[in-house]
Amino acid sequence: MASPFPHRDLTGIFGLQPWEIAYLLDEAEQWIALNRSRSKHDDRLAGLTVITAFFENSTRTLLSFEIAGKRLGADVVNMGVGQSSVKKGETLIDTAVTLNAMRADVIVIRHDASGAVQLIADKVDCPVLNAGDGRHEHPTQALLDALTIRRRKGRIEGVRVAICGDVLHSRVARSNILALTALGAEVRVIAPPTLMPAAIERMGVTAFTDFDAGLDGCDVVMMLRLQRERMSGGFVPSPREYHALYGLTEERLERAAPDALVMHPGPMNRGVEITSSVADHPTRSAITEQVEMGVAVRMACLDVLTRRQRGVEGWA
Amino acid sequence: MASPFPHRDLTGIFGLQPWEIAYLLDEAEQWIALNRSRSKHDDRLAGLTVITAFFENSTRTLLSFEIAGKRLGADVVNMGVGQSSVKKGETLIDTAVTLNAMRADVIVIRHDASGAVQLIADKVDCPVLNAGDGRHEHPTQALLDALTIRRRKGRIEGVRVAICGDVLHSRVARSNILALTALGAEVRVIAPPTLMPAAIERMGVTAFTDFDAGLDGCDVVMMLRLQRERMSGGFVPSPREYHALYGLTEERLERAAPDALVMHPGPMNRGVEITSSVADHPTRSAITEQVEMGVAVRMACLDVLTRRQRGVEGWA
Amino acid sequence: MASPFPHRDLTGIFGLQPWEIAYLLDEAEQWIALNRSRSKHDDRLAGLTVITAFFENSTRTLLSFEIAGKRLGADVVNMGVGQSSVKKGETLIDTAVTLNAMRADVIVIRHDASGAVQLIADKVDCPVLNAGDGRHEHPTQALLDALTIRRRKGRIEGVRVAICGDVLHSRVARSNILALTALGAEVRVIAPPTLMPAAIERMGVTAFTDFDAGLDGCDVVMMLRLQRERMSGGFVPSPREYHALYGLTEERLERAAPDALVMHPGPMNRGVEITSSVADHPTRSAITEQVEMGVAVRMACLDVLTRRQRGVEGWA
Repeated sequence: MASPFPHRDLTGIFGLQPWEIAYLLDEAEQWIALNRSRSKHDDRLAGLTVITAFFENSTRTLLSFEIAGKRLGADVVNMGVGQSSVKKGETLIDTAVTLNAMRADVIVIRHDASGAVQLIADKVDCPVLNAGDGRHEHPTQALLDALTIRRRKGRIEGVRVAICGDVLHSRVARSNILALTALGAEVRVIAPPTLMPAAIERMGVTAFTDFDAGLDGCDVVMMLRLQRERMSGGFVPSPREYHALYGLTEERLERAAPDALVMHPGPMNRGVEITSSVADHPTRSAITEQVEMGVAVRMACLDVLTRRQRGVEGWA
Repeated sequence: MASPFPHRDLTGIFGLQPWEIAYLLDEAEQWIALNRSRSKHDDRLAGLTVITAFFENSTRTLLSFEIAGKRLGADVVNMGVGQSSVKKGETLIDTAVTLNAMRADVIVIRHDASGAVQLIADKVDCPVLNAGDGRHEHPTQALLDALTIRRRKGRIEGVRVAICGDVLHSRVARSNILALTALGAEVRVIAPPTLMPAAIERMGVTAFTDFDAGLDGCDVVMMLRLQRERMSGGFVPSPREYHALYGLTEERLERAAPDALVMHPGPMNRGVEITSSVADHPTRSAITEQVEMGVAVRMACLDVLTRRQRGVEGWA
Repeated sequence: MASPFPHRDLTGIFGLQPWEIAYLLDEAEQWIALNRSRSKHDDRLAGLTVITAFFENSTRTLLSFEIAGKRLGADVVNMGVGQSSVKKGETLIDTAVTLNAMRADVIVIRHDASGAVQLIADKVDCPVLNAGDGRHEHPTQALLDALTIRRRKGRIEGVRVAICGDVLHSRVARSNILALTALGAEVRVIAPPTLMPAAIERMGVTAFTDFDAGLDGCDVVMMLRLQRERMSGGFVPSPREYHALYGLTEERLERAAPDALVMHPGPMNRGVEITSSVADHPTRSAITEQVEMGVAVRMACLDVLTRRQRGVEGWA
């Protein structure tokens, strides 16, 4: 019998079967419970070495993975960006080979180049977890978002989700589109024409450049961070004009379903892509819950991906 | 019966009762003993997540808290300044909410803005420990200083302590004045006129601008670091002129009591606020001991503040 | 009976007896086995605090020590360079005294000044491990290199080793010369005239400025990293001209023994001191193995140096 998650790595949502995605979400549930309990510790990863290698700055995701690894009892070691040999001109592949030779059991990577994580995964013997690579994928973000929706709405199938903002530069959008369409959601993408990827409809979504029209009847409004630092050439909107056209305000939220959920991967540009009263809305905003789901989802991924090495029955 | 320390947070010495301060000092004694033993480990914080968030550079305090947390068995996770989302424009409150959602059990914070720690404490569900905020407070420094004095002098009540130097910019001075006056010490403040806070006498201390006069008969001489980086506008003394007027030399120390204790929170500007022969004096200098007390005091704070969560009897 | 390693510190290979070096290599063997097993954990350093203080950037060595310490169950704490009080003007000795007062059980130091590690060792009560100081020594690198050679060649005595490249700026070269000559290898040093230390023959090696001549019949070819950032004044070769004269190519490697081993401490400047086809040679290159040996050797050093404190029999 095949294991419920027959992949060594999690480099993206692309290529995963719907039931494999759902399996990771199911597995995360136990960690939500643990993290809410008095003692947030399990020893199933004791004796394993988790190396985080973040070549791009991060707070939430790095912290989230580090907490996840430590709560599962792993030895977690961070390879600091500032201290990286990459600055001495070492190739990415040499870094990968080095981490592998130190007998890492899991490598968690963030890199500003799309595909860098797969490049590393090809060179090592242990599971590799993509914590975001360029504009490519950010699979644990999509998993935590799907988990948040599933818990709040009771299901994902048939839920109408709008992903709004700088879709062009967003690996979060890409991974979410893949995960949510696989799980049967009706996904809409709302972006300014200059920030809308070409032929995005081929991913099974409906594209809108008019924010108000796109929001109509949506059950979930997922805002993206305006990545001004990633824009080069062409139109770079000012925060003020971006907010006027594509900022989520209370008035605009009225277009969505009455109990629409508001999400944001963080960190937020308050007053740019989202207004504070919406971000902090007591019942509609799920932004804080997303952070909590993040730790649980990462614990699930670390647990599931290391079962083969740990000799868990059925994962040979 | 109320618990001996009925506060959720330690954001400052202000507001603490003398017996509460003394309780933390009493609790620290056991950790001094543990830290001097062969195995420096206790598991009472096992399963708890301690997040350190230092928005201002630090070596001693960060190391000290990290060692304290790890020796008590906690999962300690550092949120790096350089990697902080704050650099991406995230608000401090969003950072607080994020750390809270990750289910931190204690958050230890240093920030360059006075009051930032209280702001965070107001937004989270777990104990918050102030590791220094702006010019406001640095309570664990005051506790370790009080513990050092109590151990060296056998008592704090009635001890004459001179706090000398850049009092205006010093959270160390502020927290020490609060703690030492609460515990019955006779506190003097010695500073150049430009570095003396207005109306400092209201804090129950005597103010001196003449170093020699202020030192007269003091049992403890606590030197402050000259914080040239914090001075803006007005008079910024050169190290040389500062040393001439307010540097602690062997001759000047003669003004104090014959067995006067010399203290400094570190890191020292040798040859500026203190001369090396005094800093390294074999019997009078307690500077190294202060560092040792620092780890013990922080272990005590982490232990005491988490008792409620850990369900320790009498701390419900 | 004396213990097999009667030194408190490992500040260099200089001063070690051949059997002491061999003892550390023997001890490392068990850790290679552990690191290749399912659970990479041993608890013999539980309750001990290992502080790493790297004043110079590093990826491999810092990661390697951190993994080594954690796999042995120690509480490992990194003193960040960027967060160091040294930046506030604290003296190195004050830093040492501080780490000591926090009751470190081992201090691992990297510093850009030759002799800095010894200076610290003189001021503390616990074992100090040199992770590289200036141009002086990098003893664990020499140990891991010796272990790699011993395992690949079955012995070190009589093996002909060429150390090639920027010998003048290389602590790796210095420590390797000391270790390999002590263990009976025939060591050759190959360097451009401007990068060859004066009177290097006094260290018991043969010096060559002609790469091809020096390689003749060598069993091991150990390339050094071209440290362009350390060169000041005088001749700084361009990568291209350096490669032409002193880069290890497949053709050049033909001069060495038929089964010659290729080594490099990393990170490599591919195409400068070594060509990729040589670095990645499936049978001849031992570069990845060196990284693996590094973790094992550092575990051995941490174990052996802490035996006295841990009260291991025979190490009183």
